Amino acid sequence: MRAVVMRNKALVVADVPVPEPGPGEVLVKTLACGICGSDLHALKHAEKFVESSRRAGNLFAMDLARDVVMGHEFCAEIADHGPDTRKTLKVGTRVCSRPVLMRPEGPRTVGYSNDHPGGYAEYMRLTEALLLEVPNGLSTEHAALTEPLAVGVHAVNRARLERDEAPLVIGCGPVGLAVIAALRLAGVSPIVAADFSAGRRELASALGADVVVDPAATTAWTSWREAAVWRDPGRAPVLPPWVTGPALRPAVVFECVGVPGVLDQIMAGAPRGTRIVVVGVCMEADTIHPLLGIAKELNLQFVLGYTPEEFAATLEHLAEGALPSAPLITGKVGAQGVAQAFADLASPEHHAKMLVEPWRN
Amino acid sequence: MRAVVMRNKALVVADVPVPEPGPGEVLVKTLACGICGSDLHALKHAEKFVESSRRAGNLFAMDLARDVVMGHEFCAEIADHGPDTRKTLKVGTRVCSRPVLMRPEGPRTVGYSNDHPGGYAEYMRLTEALLLEVPNGLSTEHAALTEPLAVGVHAVNRARLERDEAPLVIGCGPVGLAVIAALRLAGVSPIVAADFSAGRRELASALGADVVVDPAATTAWTSWREAAVWRDPGRAPVLPPWVTGPALRPAVVFECVGVPGVLDQIMAGAPRGTRIVVVGVCMEADTIHPLLGIAKELNLQFVLGYTPEEFAATLEHLAEGALPSAPLITGKVGAQGVAQAFADLASPEHHAKMLVEPWRN
Repeated sequence: MRAVVMRNKALVVADVPVPEPGPGEVLVKTLACGICGSDLHALKHAEKFVESSRRAGNLFAMDLARDVVMGHEFCAEIADHGPDTRKTLKVGTRVCSRPVLMRPEGPRTVGYSNDHPGGYAEYMRLTEALLLEVPNGLSTEHAALTEPLAVGVHAVNRARLERDEAPLVIGCGPVGLAVIAALRLAGVSPIVAADFSAGRRELASALGADVVVDPAATTAWTSWREAAVWRDPGRAPVLPPWVTGPALRPAVVFECVGVPGVLDQIMAGAPRGTRIVVVGVCMEADTIHPLLGIAKELNLQFVLGYTPEEFAATLEHLAEGALPSAPLITGKVGAQGVAQAFADLASPEHHAKMLVEPWRN
Repeated sequence: MRAVVMRNKALVVADVPVPEPGPGEVLVKTLACGICGSDLHALKHAEKFVESSRRAGNLFAMDLARDVVMGHEFCAEIADHGPDTRKTLKVGTRVCSRPVLMRPEGPRTVGYSNDHPGGYAEYMRLTEALLLEVPNGLSTEHAALTEPLAVGVHAVNRARLERDEAPLVIGCGPVGLAVIAALRLAGVSPIVAADFSAGRRELASALGADVVVDPAATTAWTSWREAAVWRDPGRAPVLPPWVTGPALRPAVVFECVGVPGVLDQIMAGAPRGTRIVVVGVCMEADTIHPLLGIAKELNLQFVLGYTPEEFAATLEHLAEGALPSAPLITGKVGAQGVAQAFADLASPEHHAKMLVEPWRN
């Protein structure tokens, strides 16, 4: 089958064997698969990616000397049923699935793996029990956004926002945009979001941000403070006489950049008691000044992925049109276009989510 | 008056002016004042201390070119009432207070200050409204432990331990010991605590640790895992078939070392979902690997100090004998002995809390 393969730290279109579905597994044809920022990172910093993931409990176990077919944000179509399957969903049904195979020896990643090709290939094998039928005539392109948007839904769930807390989203790449969409879905307002890129700020507005900030012009905290003033003075805490300025709602920051230095910057700017939800995936060592956290009693909640329930709910929300998503898709490529798409995505101005259609060249 | 002064990065015994109590303030005679690890740090890394504290919102504002009289863990005796005081507590009453002056322009630190001498001097000025009478015949020495023990009470309160969570205390210096005492007060069990020093492990046991670990012999997590096995199988979660070993209760780690590298080590060893309460005060830059936090969805809660209510409750608990504390005091010195005490405290084997009695040489 045709696949975009990571080989010798480059992406090449190659012919690789169609995977054999095991017991309880199905063979699916990939219809569309999003390119994730982690895929860019895995290609550019392959050894570091594998080493960091090894230190973190072998999150993604890959042998770089062997082929890897990435792609974990997909919508696919059932092509064949393997042994011991229930066949509840017929061949030709469009499905989404978490990118994981439930094997007797434990879950195995689809996409960051030498053995289980991801959505940059024409075919994948998936666990039948994990398949979710694409409901309600939802388009294939939007169904493929389930995985990245579920990341935002999970981050917002884990944040457990209280009524008076005022969010600030730092970084409006695909992760930040997913968080903004999930905040909007949860009815949170106002949503303040910051990104250096004008294109991404536009996307942030389109997905539901009420206030967008260019950190090159003004700090994110300045805009956040304006938005976080208590509207209802009866709910605002009484400030001691030596505190100047109005009372502000408690801050919850979503760190959606994932680059060294950002966390410390957020800790330096954050008001006392701020909760920071770390959604951006920083794969490198990072320097923080713990005294900043201590002096202000900050809380850092690191989050990853989503629960099976959140994944399913995200697909439902997409099908109902409740999750803003259309502006996210900024391009589509066939197999031959993937390497160039990876290069294009390095510049944040013009792209958010690009979809791969590995069934075409 | 006689005072142990930080001057040119050294401790010298000097004669300095007795402070003048302002409106609402009293003059007190220091009876005993504990030496805090932060004092050691402030002396050894004075510039860094001031700079870190400046970055953290001017936590402690000091001009190192001028004298500083440290000491913020004290028991004192009322010597005189300043203007506009209520005089509810008479001269001669023994009192404790949070080390802070409530001034109209805002709170001011007692101890890390050029203007408000702390408990290494014969006299201090304190805010009358903050004074707590030492109750129930509690000894001066034990009353002086209120401040450091309140730090442990606060950390345990902020941890909001749930019934099934199993604590691990990393570091058994005064901060770790205060946490152990507060965990014991809260009825938490088993308490697992780790320190490289045999002397400190002995103190940890004396203060209420059920299991003490020498990390040079075995990892803290090995001992924690043995202690964290669910006793009541009915409450234990059902593990997936590929997980080996017994189900373990959720971990809450108290980081009580405050030295670069420890946080990342804890993050590397922690099981999924661990909550880490950062109580140790690391004043330097520190390196972490965020992916460790992300992969395991760790939570870091930084904590500092205590609330007024926690401070008062700690003094009450001490007076009632509910907070184990006696083993903490490992020495007492007069003013002339403070410099040597600072040197002795650098070695963890023989000392935990040393008290200064600045009324004697």
